[in-house]
Amino acid sequence: MIVQLRDGLSTAEESSVLSQLSDMGCKVTPVVTQLKKYLVVDPKKEIDIRSVGQLKGVRDVHRVNAPYKLVSRKWRVAPSAVSLGDGVQFAEGELTIAAGPCSIEDERQIDSVIAHLKEIGVRIMRGGVYKPRTSPYSFRGVGLEGLKMWHEKAREAGIKVVTEVLATDQIESMHDYVDMFQVGARNAQNFTLLAELGKVDKPVLLKRGMSTTLDEFLHAAEYIFSSGNEKLVLCERGIRTFERAYRNTLDINAVPALKERTHLPVVVDPSHGIGVRRWVRSVALAAVIAGCDGLILEVAPIPEKAFSDGQQTLNFKESRELIEKAQQLIAIRREDY
Amino acid sequence: MIVQLRDGLSTAEESSVLSQLSDMGCKVTPVVTQLKKYLVVDPKKEIDIRSVGQLKGVRDVHRVNAPYKLVSRKWRVAPSAVSLGDGVQFAEGELTIAAGPCSIEDERQIDSVIAHLKEIGVRIMRGGVYKPRTSPYSFRGVGLEGLKMWHEKAREAGIKVVTEVLATDQIESMHDYVDMFQVGARNAQNFTLLAELGKVDKPVLLKRGMSTTLDEFLHAAEYIFSSGNEKLVLCERGIRTFERAYRNTLDINAVPALKERTHLPVVVDPSHGIGVRRWVRSVALAAVIAGCDGLILEVAPIPEKAFSDGQQTLNFKESRELIEKAQQLIAIRREDY
Amino acid sequence: MIVQLRDGLSTAEESSVLSQLSDMGCKVTPVVTQLKKYLVVDPKKEIDIRSVGQLKGVRDVHRVNAPYKLVSRKWRVAPSAVSLGDGVQFAEGELTIAAGPCSIEDERQIDSVIAHLKEIGVRIMRGGVYKPRTSPYSFRGVGLEGLKMWHEKAREAGIKVVTEVLATDQIESMHDYVDMFQVGARNAQNFTLLAELGKVDKPVLLKRGMSTTLDEFLHAAEYIFSSGNEKLVLCERGIRTFERAYRNTLDINAVPALKERTHLPVVVDPSHGIGVRRWVRSVALAAVIAGCDGLILEVAPIPEKAFSDGQQTLNFKESRELIEKAQQLIAIRREDY
Amino acid sequence: MIVQLRDGLSTAEESSVLSQLSDMGCKVTPVVTQLKKYLVVDPKKEIDIRSVGQLKGVRDVHRVNAPYKLVSRKWRVAPSAVSLGDGVQFAEGELTIAAGPCSIEDERQIDSVIAHLKEIGVRIMRGGVYKPRTSPYSFRGVGLEGLKMWHEKAREAGIKVVTEVLATDQIESMHDYVDMFQVGARNAQNFTLLAELGKVDKPVLLKRGMSTTLDEFLHAAEYIFSSGNEKLVLCERGIRTFERAYRNTLDINAVPALKERTHLPVVVDPSHGIGVRRWVRSVALAAVIAGCDGLILEVAPIPEKAFSDGQQTLNFKESRELIEKAQQLIAIRREDY
Repeated sequence: MIVQLRDGLSTAEESSVLSQLSDMGCKVTPVVTQLKKYLVVDPKKEIDIRSVGQLKGVRDVHRVNAPYKLVSRKWRVAPSAVSLGDGVQFAEGELTIAAGPCSIEDERQIDSVIAHLKEIGVRIMRGGVYKPRTSPYSFRGVGLEGLKMWHEKAREAGIKVVTEVLATDQIESMHDYVDMFQVGARNAQNFTLLAELGKVDKPVLLKRGMSTTLDEFLHAAEYIFSSGNEKLVLCERGIRTFERAYRNTLDINAVPALKERTHLPVVVDPSHGIGVRRWVRSVALAAVIAGCDGLILEVAPIPEKAFSDGQQTLNFKESRELIEKAQQLIAIRREDY
Repeated sequence: MIVQLRDGLSTAEESSVLSQLSDMGCKVTPVVTQLKKYLVVDPKKEIDIRSVGQLKGVRDVHRVNAPYKLVSRKWRVAPSAVSLGDGVQFAEGELTIAAGPCSIEDERQIDSVIAHLKEIGVRIMRGGVYKPRTSPYSFRGVGLEGLKMWHEKAREAGIKVVTEVLATDQIESMHDYVDMFQVGARNAQNFTLLAELGKVDKPVLLKRGMSTTLDEFLHAAEYIFSSGNEKLVLCERGIRTFERAYRNTLDINAVPALKERTHLPVVVDPSHGIGVRRWVRSVALAAVIAGCDGLILEVAPIPEKAFSDGQQTLNFKESRELIEKAQQLIAIRREDY
Repeated sequence: MIVQLRDGLSTAEESSVLSQLSDMGCKVTPVVTQLKKYLVVDPKKEIDIRSVGQLKGVRDVHRVNAPYKLVSRKWRVAPSAVSLGDGVQFAEGELTIAAGPCSIEDERQIDSVIAHLKEIGVRIMRGGVYKPRTSPYSFRGVGLEGLKMWHEKAREAGIKVVTEVLATDQIESMHDYVDMFQVGARNAQNFTLLAELGKVDKPVLLKRGMSTTLDEFLHAAEYIFSSGNEKLVLCERGIRTFERAYRNTLDINAVPALKERTHLPVVVDPSHGIGVRRWVRSVALAAVIAGCDGLILEVAPIPEKAFSDGQQTLNFKESRELIEKAQQLIAIRREDY
Repeated sequence: MIVQLRDGLSTAEESSVLSQLSDMGCKVTPVVTQLKKYLVVDPKKEIDIRSVGQLKGVRDVHRVNAPYKLVSRKWRVAPSAVSLGDGVQFAEGELTIAAGPCSIEDERQIDSVIAHLKEIGVRIMRGGVYKPRTSPYSFRGVGLEGLKMWHEKAREAGIKVVTEVLATDQIESMHDYVDMFQVGARNAQNFTLLAELGKVDKPVLLKRGMSTTLDEFLHAAEYIFSSGNEKLVLCERGIRTFERAYRNTLDINAVPALKERTHLPVVVDPSHGIGVRRWVRSVALAAVIAGCDGLILEVAPIPEKAFSDGQQTLNFKESRELIEKAQQLIAIRREDY
């Protein structure tokens, strides 16, 4: 059950509601986000929802049967938009693109990608500065200094920056140089990191883990939301199956299933999703028509020379053509969704 | 290696080529289909392909590195079209729809579906008369008599019939009453059935098994082709993964990957693919834009009352709207594929 | 619900029970096996089980909540033994071994394996004469003539023969030359074949499919049983997962889970299960201690030269040592199971 | 390639080796653990290994073809033992048991479990004080104060403590109160946490992730080792598959496969592995006979009342009987392994 209190309640009035709920046998988790206050209420026994609604100071009560609460569409029926500032946002009915290299490499690469994004009208640049690599001996990213340089250049160009954070102790130092934090597939159930990102007032792009069920995925989002951060975007990026013809198996089914269950924006990363460059376009367009609110694309000047993931990265021509087609599809999709 | 002989060779000349290949250390499998003759040649040791090309009577030699040969696009670069007669076909650049109930039930249902298909311009009707059911106590279909009635009505309406064959000994009795045989997911590696369908001059719709890799899927097609039947259509219908939010996980990735590997038409069954009625539309349209050559849809007058699979079956209104949208997408897809 | 009738009922009395059950709103499937008669009763609405028990001619009524009925341990609590004749059987508390090559090749190989089996006291020989091969161009087995020769030699040596049947039309010709039919993983849901094997009075070794759930596996067994054949042995042989370090992933968990659910013997094929020769011993012994009733082992004189599956086949020394150890473990297991 | 230097080299001599290797075109990662110094050398081009061996100051060179190096058995052929102090260790040929509740709850529970462990001779107690829970509203553990109390009691009883660490910033505060850190399945690829644990001089129990391949698992171990901590134990704890009859699918195959690839001890957690209490015994014993070096068991005074995971937790009687049987099997296993 989600309870919302009337605005302007005094601390004493709030405490009174909490203790009355507690007396009714409920476990109450107060949640304060950037935007609002909520009480997540778990009635340990059967109670009459009306008796909660009649408590003094309570404005609204919603029964939410799903095990996740605040991210559920059962409670908030209208889709949420997530803003990165300056008019850049993820929102239902739009198609927001983030594009860029797997790894940030150097100034020249950054300049080249920024110029490309400006040309094709993409306003978010993705790129890794801390890379979660399977082997400890692989290139692990340019780190904070690289991020600062990148962010400065992006800011000047009016482009937002989204990049992966690997650890709680990176959050503070990265904070001023990112417009959106990304949580990668390997940290999809790193609950400490999730909770910590709940305390930050920056949007979070949360990727699904390699074998995370939708239920677990939504619970992961609930961690961030219930820790205080509503600005969440969910990203399907391919799951692990028996099939070996692709690097991962992009799960297109997750798009309609997630959109039905949550009010949060849902985007798709077709580059990791299928992991094979010449097939990225097909599944990206499929994701668009299936109803996703955005795409996260790996794009680099010369994919063949990229430090990492070159085999799934588009070049500039491919990315331009893909995005043009995607925009065309969005127009068609809008007609009836 | 695939070797094609010149037309009009005498039996003696043919034998001579075979014995020369054999002398060169090759294992040769002669294949005669409805359309052509081929020699599938497996050189047990390194040989010079030109020496094969110079054999008297040989018209053409193709090296095919894939373990499947005749279905490979390495050999036949142009996509194959598969005709069901009367202008009904599966072919690249088109979107051929087969629609109908999971199970054929009775005359009234058949009439109703046929009328619907005619109205929306669908020329192939799908439906089961022999049902592969998990439990031996479930409804197993109306059988041959039902098929005869159905086929008669469909024929009168100018509609082709595709239905699943479960066993080799059903092939003969079903033969005159089907326009296309379907092999279901559970028989995807029933090699005896596949080989037997290679001897029939009717198109075959081959479904991918629940955990069949693309490689195995193409080998299954090779069984039918190498037994003599080129008229093959491959159907992705959802795979088995850890995710429980859907009945199956439609593997959209298979569409571009299969289209690249084989010249055969590739279609998608979104009804089984995701298994949840209200999400069928999204993944069906995704499959269309991803490049499939057709859709196999479960459609019934009143899905809620269907004998089987009602939870994934569209009603008439839903199927009409889906197909209209799909046709609109095909027009867009054609622009650049 | 499973209903057993009193012995010696007249046809009229039997019919009377059936029609009374039908009047009570039940769907009744009469089953006649080699051993007994049963009525599998599906009450379409809530009925009082005592009212069924009181019908004239009814000896026993068992409520079975599982969707599979006759194979369920809810109904038949004591484990069933399955005999191949001459004292060779699969039975709880014992460890019955079937060993032999993947493919039967020639007389010399057969003689060699038989001599080995006699030496180590194994009384069942496995081997394929019809091979389900992924590629149509691979060796597909020596066929019926090879089976006849093999069976003759085995019979003389007092050894039973178990071999895979791929198609319904092979059953009759193979019948006199096998002591147990095997259904392979690829036919685990070939319901036509299963039903046909229900009509045969020979034991059946039913392998689990590559992605068959235990529930589906037990339903597959129910097909055979309800078609008339009680002599069933279930075989776990590895499932398909994301892991690529082994050919398959032997599912040890299936052993206790199946033993709890069914009264049928449960055996394990560690050769296919893990698919890597040097690890077969470890998982075979694990299966024994986990409670399986037998092992199916691939054993050949010179595995490196076998026509198929050599990479998972034990040589004679390895098989002897494995079986000795397994017998030692059985003694330990018996102490407390 | 792993290079070991001679003891007592001066800093200048060491630097000289490094720069010579660098000149030869090698990427060198110097590793200093609690026990030794290593150079992990990645020759970017083909080089003669003998020329490395002849460098002044080099004692030993090992070619390791596996992508993981220091954890590979290709390099260190003899199995490593990992000590927790006071004679408690994980080592080949032994069976070391860690047992205890999923969650540490209160003093009474701790006392009860400790008394039980002393009685049955188990010298390591497991238990969670920081719990990674799918839902943010679930019980998340008693935290640091609970750990202190638990550790004090365990220390007095001569019992070692292993507990999960969820975040890098917990390491320092937990350090003095644990004898072994555990990394849970959800953090199996949390590379930041792994690297941080490499800097600690306490043994680490590293659990396999739900869909982590063995290759990725060994790389995760390599992260810790190459960051300085050799005291590693690997734990198989069940993987995620399509099967729904168990909570997870314990992967028994991983035991021989891991033992072959790494010199590190390999243990099994059958409680999470199968996730169903009445089947834990079977798979635990299977793991023992398959060759594992230890078991991690969930045991509680009254599993039915445990705060978490009660459905897979053994009671005292069950744990005693299981461990007795396991010890009996170890004696048998030792005879020939």
